[in-house]
Amino acid sequence: MGINLTNFLSSKSKNKRMIEFQDLDHIDGLSISTISANLYKNNRDDLVMFYFRDSANYASVYTQSKIVSENIKWNINQKSKKIYSLLVNTRNANCFTGKQGYKSLENIAEILSQKLSQKQKEDDNYPKKIKTKEIIFGCTGTIGEPFPEKKIINNIDQLVKKIKYTQNKYIWMKAALGIMTTDTQPKMAMEHCEIGNNDIKIFGIAKGSGMIQPNMATTLGYIFTDADIPHDILKKLLKKNITSTFNAISCDGDTSTNDMVSIFSTAKAKHPKIKSINDPKLKNFDESLNKVLLNLAKRVVADGEGASKFVTIYVLNCRNEIDAKKFAFSIANSPLVKTAITGEDPNWGRIIMAIGKAGIPFNYDKLTIRFGNIIIVQNGKINVNYNEEEAANYMKNDNIEIKIDISSGSKNFKAFTMDLTKKYIEINSDYRS
Amino acid sequence: MGINLTNFLSSKSKNKRMIEFQDLDHIDGLSISTISANLYKNNRDDLVMFYFRDSANYASVYTQSKIVSENIKWNINQKSKKIYSLLVNTRNANCFTGKQGYKSLENIAEILSQKLSQKQKEDDNYPKKIKTKEIIFGCTGTIGEPFPEKKIINNIDQLVKKIKYTQNKYIWMKAALGIMTTDTQPKMAMEHCEIGNNDIKIFGIAKGSGMIQPNMATTLGYIFTDADIPHDILKKLLKKNITSTFNAISCDGDTSTNDMVSIFSTAKAKHPKIKSINDPKLKNFDESLNKVLLNLAKRVVADGEGASKFVTIYVLNCRNEIDAKKFAFSIANSPLVKTAITGEDPNWGRIIMAIGKAGIPFNYDKLTIRFGNIIIVQNGKINVNYNEEEAANYMKNDNIEIKIDISSGSKNFKAFTMDLTKKYIEINSDYRS
Repeated sequence: MGINLTNFLSSKSKNKRMIEFQDLDHIDGLSISTISANLYKNNRDDLVMFYFRDSANYASVYTQSKIVSENIKWNINQKSKKIYSLLVNTRNANCFTGKQGYKSLENIAEILSQKLSQKQKEDDNYPKKIKTKEIIFGCTGTIGEPFPEKKIINNIDQLVKKIKYTQNKYIWMKAALGIMTTDTQPKMAMEHCEIGNNDIKIFGIAKGSGMIQPNMATTLGYIFTDADIPHDILKKLLKKNITSTFNAISCDGDTSTNDMVSIFSTAKAKHPKIKSINDPKLKNFDESLNKVLLNLAKRVVADGEGASKFVTIYVLNCRNEIDAKKFAFSIANSPLVKTAITGEDPNWGRIIMAIGKAGIPFNYDKLTIRFGNIIIVQNGKINVNYNEEEAANYMKNDNIEIKIDISSGSKNFKAFTMDLTKKYIEINSDYRS
Repeated sequence: MGINLTNFLSSKSKNKRMIEFQDLDHIDGLSISTISANLYKNNRDDLVMFYFRDSANYASVYTQSKIVSENIKWNINQKSKKIYSLLVNTRNANCFTGKQGYKSLENIAEILSQKLSQKQKEDDNYPKKIKTKEIIFGCTGTIGEPFPEKKIINNIDQLVKKIKYTQNKYIWMKAALGIMTTDTQPKMAMEHCEIGNNDIKIFGIAKGSGMIQPNMATTLGYIFTDADIPHDILKKLLKKNITSTFNAISCDGDTSTNDMVSIFSTAKAKHPKIKSINDPKLKNFDESLNKVLLNLAKRVVADGEGASKFVTIYVLNCRNEIDAKKFAFSIANSPLVKTAITGEDPNWGRIIMAIGKAGIPFNYDKLTIRFGNIIIVQNGKINVNYNEEEAANYMKNDNIEIKIDISSGSKNFKAFTMDLTKKYIEINSDYRS
């Protein structure tokens, strides 16, 4: 895990707060409780509850896999625009658990909604009756094992007891650690922005790329803001920004059954009302949301299993974005490209191969390939000034940029990935147990 | 390279000759010359000429990559139905070599056709004037280096001098070795069959899965028969049989710019005339051709870089063959599935993941998953009698069979692949030089 995050995270950000974990503090309207339900049998934290005292508008995007976990089915079925709680567990993906898995969520939602309604009565001036459909779930871990309903239910009282109305950096760190599987680092990001001169916070945590027995690299990303943005606009903002962030990363080309990225808006900040996604007052928020998502997505890649290098693939000037994306992922997912990068070898022949196998017709007399600022292929020919020694030196960097210019249109796509190392094989060929 | 080929090659073949290399002997009408043009600078054989004294009908299938090598462009441009020679070189892929690469082939074809025409005059009663368009090329090796035209031209005299009208097992072995890049084993296969009570030979050699600097796993497969089958029917036979053989294998999901599988028919065997692909007399030939292609394709996989296990993926009862193929390759190309196999871990959760990410809607209440004969998932539920210890034992085999039954139609596909090991990373992350 030798990747220097600071380089690629800081260089383009003007906000110094972005990198530092410890700056995440309080989002008004949100409480976080973290606990060990002993799902791992080693007392690590494995259950994290996000509670929104006065509810939160929310929107989610989910995995594209045709097999989805029971919690994703649950979340989709509720069709809620406002929720009171997101409960995240690790160790068990609640996938391929059938009726037991779904029924467990129903039972947990039932008890959790009762306990939270009771908490409302105790603490609030205007107590709300919380419904089961106002609770959603994030699950990550083993597929096909019975969902540990009882262990989770046994810990609900404790989770509710732990609710505090002021959050600090330690609570965020505990939450980011509590949703990890075999990630080696917690992943947090934050931005401040403005909506009509009012300071707005956007905080986020994520997990991903870690492996747990038997499973795949589930990505979870949760974004919290104190802005007051309605469900419909949150949904559009998330969809718009996910393409260039979480949907632009690839570790090994595999897709989890449990992927989930959500945004929650507690509406506690004061600012002029937002009625449309085209409202110019949203511009700064929109950009900052993108930064938080991109920051988290990059952290997921940088922590990719066995990664020794962080790789950015720019595909420029395609006829449309679909083509640009296909070229980018054809390169990003190629084991031959990845292993060349591992070997610090400027092996551009493999880039050619990956461009060709993308299956998109293009005029290769116009093709340009750069590693960083080193031009290797220009107008479909090897650059006469290409110096392999210089390129080999470039490949020694922790952060590698591969730039492909197709020169047949104006659409671009940028993908993020890592190299493929022996460590990856070691981690993933290790027998579960 | 611990894979026992005998198991998976012999079990289903009734023809004892199939496995043994040394049985390849003479195909009437074909001469083979092998030489070192010192392309590797270590005097290994790297140039192989197949010469058909009285020409051969031929048909080819080529890579699906949108970037193809100059030799494939040449072969396609000639539009020949009969050829006199196939010249194969290793070390240089003649890809991304532009006009120099194409012009080189033109020059080589010019000189080779002259020399072979001269040879015809010396040896034959009815000498033919051989045209440049009656010569085709196979190239494999480095991308983007100038094509070594001169070195090849300098060796044409020697290649022509080496022509002998009777072939034996040593000549075949030399040819199979001469087309290798970093393959660890030569690949040969043969079948005898009948067309209307006449004995017909089908011999084949292949290379693949080997890596050379800088490049990818180019697959070359060449099939030779003494049958008298016209170009059009050869083409149909090859297309029909390539789907379940060379197009059913995957080593790392990458695609070469140089892939080429061809069949040559010298028409020297006596048998009733074949006028249509539906002629019942062709049935035995068709089946035997499939066996030769499948045998070679399996050898390519078994010799896949770093392979420690040979994996067959059966996808059964899909609505159509396209779906079956997508499911099969989604599993075959998944690094997580491959590494689980490397770790001898019956990690069926990763199979579920790979089925889901194929992107094909299906009813998973009907899904069945088997490792060998061990039922793991049945009707979308974990088999109550599933015994992980038994499955873990099964995973210790060199040959692993994964069987997926989708139960929603009648179409099947069988894919062949290997596991993903540290050795693969080692081979492919090694700096070229």
